[in-house]
This record gives sequence, C-alpha cells and structure tokens, in this order.
Amino acid sequence: MTEDAADISWDPYERGCPSRDVLDRIGDKWTVLVLGELAAAGPQRFTALRKRVDGVSEKMLTQTLRSLERDGLVLRTVHPEVPPRVVYELTPLGETLGEPLDMLKRWSVEHMDEIVAARASYEAGAGTRVSR
Amino acid sequence: MTEDAADISWDPYERGCPSRDVLDRIGDKWTVLVLGELAAAGPQRFTALRKRVDGVSEKMLTQTLRSLERDGLVLRTVHPEVPPRVVYELTPLGETLGEPLDMLKRWSVEHMDEIVAARASYEAGAGTRVSR
Repeated sequence: MTEDAADISWDPYERGCPSRDVLDRIGDKWTVLVLGELAAAGPQRFTALRKRVDGVSEKMLTQTLRSLERDGLVLRTVHPEVPPRVVYELTPLGETLGEPLDMLKRWSVEHMDEIVAARASYEAGAGTRVSR
Repeated sequence: MTEDAADISWDPYERGCPSRDVLDRIGDKWTVLVLGELAAAGPQRFTALRKRVDGVSEKMLTQTLRSLERDGLVLRTVHPEVPPRVVYELTPLGETLGEPLDMLKRWSVEHMDEIVAARASYEAGAGTRVSR
C-alpha cells in the first residue's frame, strides 16, 4: 500500500471512522500532559506522573495510561521487586506524537493572553460582526 | 513583558491554570475538524460546515462555534439579507492554530494502522511487559 492509499483510507471527517476517535483522544488535555512529561523527563512511575500533572485524579490518570498503553503509545513495565516497581515510558510510536502535542501545548501557553482578551471582549458583547 | 516571562505565567501542568482548559478545548475533535475545514475551504455557512463534519449534531456544532468565537478563534458575521446569511471564518488568531491542529490530524491518519495493530495486540494480552 502506498502512502497515498493509506492517507485515503482513514478520514476523521467521516462519521464512524476510527481516526476521529483517535484524534479526540490524542488531543485530550491529560494525554497531552502525560505524554509531554514522559517525553521531557523519560520513564516515570505512576506517583511521579501524578505529582507532575497537578490535580489529576488517580482514576483519571489510570484510565489515561491504560488507553495510551492500549493504543501502543506508552509501554508499562513491571519490575518484579518487592513491592513491584511499575514504570511508564513512551514507545517509538508515542515518541512520534511528541512534536505535534508539544506544538499544541506551546500554542495554548503562548496565546493565552489573546484568548483572555477575546473572552473579555465577547462577554462585553463584541462577538458577532454585522456586515454593512 | 518579554516572551520568556509570558511563557512562565501560564502552565497547563498547574491545576487551575486556564491554559489547561484551553489546551483541552483546542484538542477536541470537533474543534480540530471545524478549524481545519475553515482553514482549508475559507469562510463557511453553518449548513456547509455541518455537512462537511459528517455526523456532528446541530447542538454540538453550535456549541463548538460559540466557544471558538468566544475564544477569538472564529469570527461570525451576519449579513443582513432576507433571510440573514451567517458566515464563519478564522480570525488571525485562529489561523495561528492551523498548523498545530493540522499536524495532529495528519498524525491520527498516518498512524491509524499502527494503533489498530497495537489494540489487537493489547486485547490479545500482550500489554504490560514484565522486566526480568
């Protein structure tokens, strides 16, 4: 299969295409933050991740990691010690997602001032433009 | 304020930072698809957008557009005709988000085959690695 054919076979604009669901999940804030931390700081234990992603619940972090593991983006390794040590790290596939997610994260930080200003303006009623 | 100082003042890793909420919203699948379509095809009416983003409900598209308008990413223009013509287009701020979101969309399409394979492998029980 050529690269073009592969591009044609998945289309998130189509209802029911699995790539739409994947697109939704990779843009999730917890996914962006967890993968960003694993990319920046390397393999991590659950507790370290949870401390870094301030405010994430244990349940949400567990779900996020399981979903990332299932999609082949994160590798979970159990070191058989007492107590067992569980470490999460990016897979090669997960590493390829690093740059797009980093761009997204940087955009949100770099443009927050403009968004805050836009919201204030919107709340003040300056939203819709009427063409004359 | 220097660019460095601006970078420091918003941090999506911090609980309660508004940039975390923004990060979540810009990665939402409807946001990615709507902004992608406006970037690719220019100003659009609601019905054209809804047709292109196959399967989006009227309510969800309305909410998505309103949120994008509020954040200053999309401009809504009412042309006072009978019936009024309402057109949505990217603002300059919305245009700056085009490249990151396009990367995300392309990633989801280009790596779907690998994700599907990873899921099959995960369901077959090949998930967690036990280090020896």
